[in-house]
Amino acid sequence: MAKPKKNPRPKAETPKGFRDYFGAEVTQRAEMLRKIAEVYHRYGFDALESSGVETVEALGKFLPDVDRPNEGVFAWQEDADADKPGDWLALRYDLTAPLARVYAQHQNDLPKPYRRYAMGPVWRNEKPGPGRFRQFYQCDADTVGAPSVAADAEICAMLCDCLEAVGIERGDYVVRVNNRKVLNGVMEVAGLAGDDKAHERGIVLRAIDKLDRLGVEGVRALLGEGRKDESGDFTEGAGLREAQVEVVMGFVSANQHVQSALDEAGDAISITVREMGKLMNASADQQTEFHDRTSQQKWNRAVLKHLSGLVEESVSGVSGIEEIGEILDLLEAQGYGPDRVVIDPSVVRGLGYYTGPVYEAELTFEIQDEKGRTRNFGSVAGGGRYDDLVKRFTGQEVPATGVSIGVDRLLAALHAKGRMQAQEPGPVVVTVMDRDRMADYQQMVAELRQAGIRAEVYLGNPKNFGNQLKYADKRGSPIAVIEGGDEKEKGVIQIKDLILGAKIAESATLEEWKDRPSQFEVPRDQLVEKTREILRQHGLPDGDADQ
Amino acid sequence: MAKPKKNPRPKAETPKGFRDYFGAEVTQRAEMLRKIAEVYHRYGFDALESSGVETVEALGKFLPDVDRPNEGVFAWQEDADADKPGDWLALRYDLTAPLARVYAQHQNDLPKPYRRYAMGPVWRNEKPGPGRFRQFYQCDADTVGAPSVAADAEICAMLCDCLEAVGIERGDYVVRVNNRKVLNGVMEVAGLAGDDKAHERGIVLRAIDKLDRLGVEGVRALLGEGRKDESGDFTEGAGLREAQVEVVMGFVSANQHVQSALDEAGDAISITVREMGKLMNASADQQTEFHDRTSQQKWNRAVLKHLSGLVEESVSGVSGIEEIGEILDLLEAQGYGPDRVVIDPSVVRGLGYYTGPVYEAELTFEIQDEKGRTRNFGSVAGGGRYDDLVKRFTGQEVPATGVSIGVDRLLAALHAKGRMQAQEPGPVVVTVMDRDRMADYQQMVAELRQAGIRAEVYLGNPKNFGNQLKYADKRGSPIAVIEGGDEKEKGVIQIKDLILGAKIAESATLEEWKDRPSQFEVPRDQLVEKTREILRQHGLPDGDADQ
Repeated sequence: MAKPKKNPRPKAETPKGFRDYFGAEVTQRAEMLRKIAEVYHRYGFDALESSGVETVEALGKFLPDVDRPNEGVFAWQEDADADKPGDWLALRYDLTAPLARVYAQHQNDLPKPYRRYAMGPVWRNEKPGPGRFRQFYQCDADTVGAPSVAADAEICAMLCDCLEAVGIERGDYVVRVNNRKVLNGVMEVAGLAGDDKAHERGIVLRAIDKLDRLGVEGVRALLGEGRKDESGDFTEGAGLREAQVEVVMGFVSANQHVQSALDEAGDAISITVREMGKLMNASADQQTEFHDRTSQQKWNRAVLKHLSGLVEESVSGVSGIEEIGEILDLLEAQGYGPDRVVIDPSVVRGLGYYTGPVYEAELTFEIQDEKGRTRNFGSVAGGGRYDDLVKRFTGQEVPATGVSIGVDRLLAALHAKGRMQAQEPGPVVVTVMDRDRMADYQQMVAELRQAGIRAEVYLGNPKNFGNQLKYADKRGSPIAVIEGGDEKEKGVIQIKDLILGAKIAESATLEEWKDRPSQFEVPRDQLVEKTREILRQHGLPDGDADQ
Repeated sequence: MAKPKKNPRPKAETPKGFRDYFGAEVTQRAEMLRKIAEVYHRYGFDALESSGVETVEALGKFLPDVDRPNEGVFAWQEDADADKPGDWLALRYDLTAPLARVYAQHQNDLPKPYRRYAMGPVWRNEKPGPGRFRQFYQCDADTVGAPSVAADAEICAMLCDCLEAVGIERGDYVVRVNNRKVLNGVMEVAGLAGDDKAHERGIVLRAIDKLDRLGVEGVRALLGEGRKDESGDFTEGAGLREAQVEVVMGFVSANQHVQSALDEAGDAISITVREMGKLMNASADQQTEFHDRTSQQKWNRAVLKHLSGLVEESVSGVSGIEEIGEILDLLEAQGYGPDRVVIDPSVVRGLGYYTGPVYEAELTFEIQDEKGRTRNFGSVAGGGRYDDLVKRFTGQEVPATGVSIGVDRLLAALHAKGRMQAQEPGPVVVTVMDRDRMADYQQMVAELRQAGIRAEVYLGNPKNFGNQLKYADKRGSPIAVIEGGDEKEKGVIQIKDLILGAKIAESATLEEWKDRPSQFEVPRDQLVEKTREILRQHGLPDGDADQ
């Protein structure tokens, strides 16, 4: 019988729902955060970094009578002091709750309005699923203490700049703007105002939020009796009367409505635009662009007018329409026209939280999902105005508006578009032919590094040379450098182009590769020069900052 | 009697021992981490980012029979599953324990040797004190699976490059190298080998580690009966016999010993060096530099020789001396001479953990401490070789060596040297004279931002113009832009140089400022040009990337 182990070895595993990130996954995200921070900073936002740990009391959302406040957060109790029980602490679940605490704590020292950005990990104690992790990055910018919608407009412009800064081209994204006041106005008009209708309003908002996935008919079902999905599951509806459903649907399908109206008038507009284009002596491309811009401008104004008609009986609704119009005006003045920012009444952005303008950035290009279906990439950022940020702490109502960019989604988008490589180029590997001459090899590596080239000497057991090349291959190294005893004597080195070598190996039968050597003998003092030449040929960074 | 509040407002406070970082504190650290990452990367190290949360089992250091494993870490228990109790999770307390877990978990996929760097927050559940926080940054690079001391030498060179990359000048730092094998050799020679002497060895190591603070006599006292400090507190000593004390002290005071030996021979050396300098036709400065280098080289060799004599009876000691010699040779081959790397027998780097070479970077310039005393800035980074990294998980012994750079200490050093400003320059503030013309102001801001200049429009209540200028002052803004109705009509704007304005206000009586205006009227279309000119005059970033 086997003797039971006294101290079994610990399992080398990440906790469930957590993961490790390697190499390019880390550097690409860091680079993206740096570029976004640069834009935030240029817009006048100041960096803020609070710690990952907050008191449960400051984070809020927790009931005092629950023994352990772990709904959705990771929490623990501090050791008791002599005279009182320890505080409950928790990992932050977003960057907005800590902002509220920071603003309340430091309000005498902070400028008002306070523009701040923050980026870092947040934690959610949720059931992990495929692609859903319990630690992930957020990257936020908020303006606290500015009631003017100019603050909202500014954030929409900044969002456009951020997307372009990280490599999303103009035309590949659109920022959709809506206003919760308009939504509230629609609720009023539909007879859903008042505290006793909160439940129905919740169902209606959730239904509108699902327009993308469920389509107009799906939403209509959820507003009425309810909806049975493909699997047969039934979701209870809001139980609205037919007239109420029509009000909400008129709002939700404002885009379709405006679309058909414009389609009807379409020919006339197109002709006028073309003729103007000819008058302006514009190229065909310019004509098309001018046409697109004009139609979109018309689009925004037409949607605004249509929505205006729907909520004209509601004070809140009319005010919301005015705010959207103002935001669009301010954005157009800064050059952010309707090719980048459009009104979309279906933008809801979650429940309860927001009180005014809401906005969302969507990538408009198509990708293949994991099941091979073509679909729009979808939302990568969003935010809006919320006014009860600091009230919990101070009793004061402080207006705030802010955006959160989903960096992991953005990274995925850039990978899907082929703009980023899964693996970053490995270092040049200087191999070890003679372990007593390590100083020689280190000297070569030092020369390369001082020239700004990523390089290293092989530090494993050098006995088996094949292993050294396998190592270089695993690292994705572009070049291996070899200096055996013969070379040393002749004052030369061998430089092996591993990328070219791999190509030759793949196409050994092709005539064109036949005479191309992938290994070059060069004088020792041309190490840096030749290495740089090969790196340049492959379009890799060659360490030359002047380039 | 006052009615007790039902829901008292939550306190807006960071948990004890945590703090918030604002503006320059965040951006300067991020910039420093980026520069260090660049050096690590150039040396062939790959980025690794594990999550902040690990299982307590994987982190180790915890006893299974303790009810709650919170000695030094923040830990909590996951909710129970149907059939078993939840795992204990904890926040990582350093970046080395997670590296061990990652290496054991992913060893089939990782290259061997595995060079990795990692940077991020770690957490310690310790009593906070002044300047001691429970969350702080670490910034590590380690090579796993390389037994050769070439790996240690490489890390010492990299450490020099990192310090210079972040702005510590050559001459302002030194990397001190020692070897735990030499320390072990001294213990053997002093008759302190063997498991039964572990307690004494601990006291001896701790005493040597305190050489800087206690001086030679303080260490001597701790090796013998013990030491009474200024406050009268008594620290028990190791109780060594006089002969044992002498062996250890010979080691500890090796530097003093070598110093006097070199001093005696000093004149002779100096003359030779000067004459060589003359022969080489060198300038006085070059002669001095050559002299310094030669003396330091001599220094390293002399210390090595002296230590060698002390441990010649110990196999471990001799091997340690050989390793130090090899490291110095490898470093000199790469150009890292004794002006940057020196042997220092008093470098211990904590207890137990290290098994071979240890190293430490010290800043050699003097600063004023909080009590106004002049002292050396001291250690900012350190590391060494440790071999039991992965053994806990796999049973295999895997050699590893690595360094940790204290970024917060480094930042403090650069501030102390006046290389970094406490506040970063604020944005150009476009003031609001007429709230109905927000679009005009936003347009100006957009022009500045597109020119790469940090700028914003004032988003608070614009009624009181004085408040707008106070805001600009609080932000540290260099410039305010003003466009009232009159200016608008004339097609001009007012550009107010706030830095110059402050100078004039300070020295109102000085003749030289009398005629210098700090406010300029310029045509509206010269907004960017004039702004850039003023920023340039003050040596501030002007957004022109070509510069």
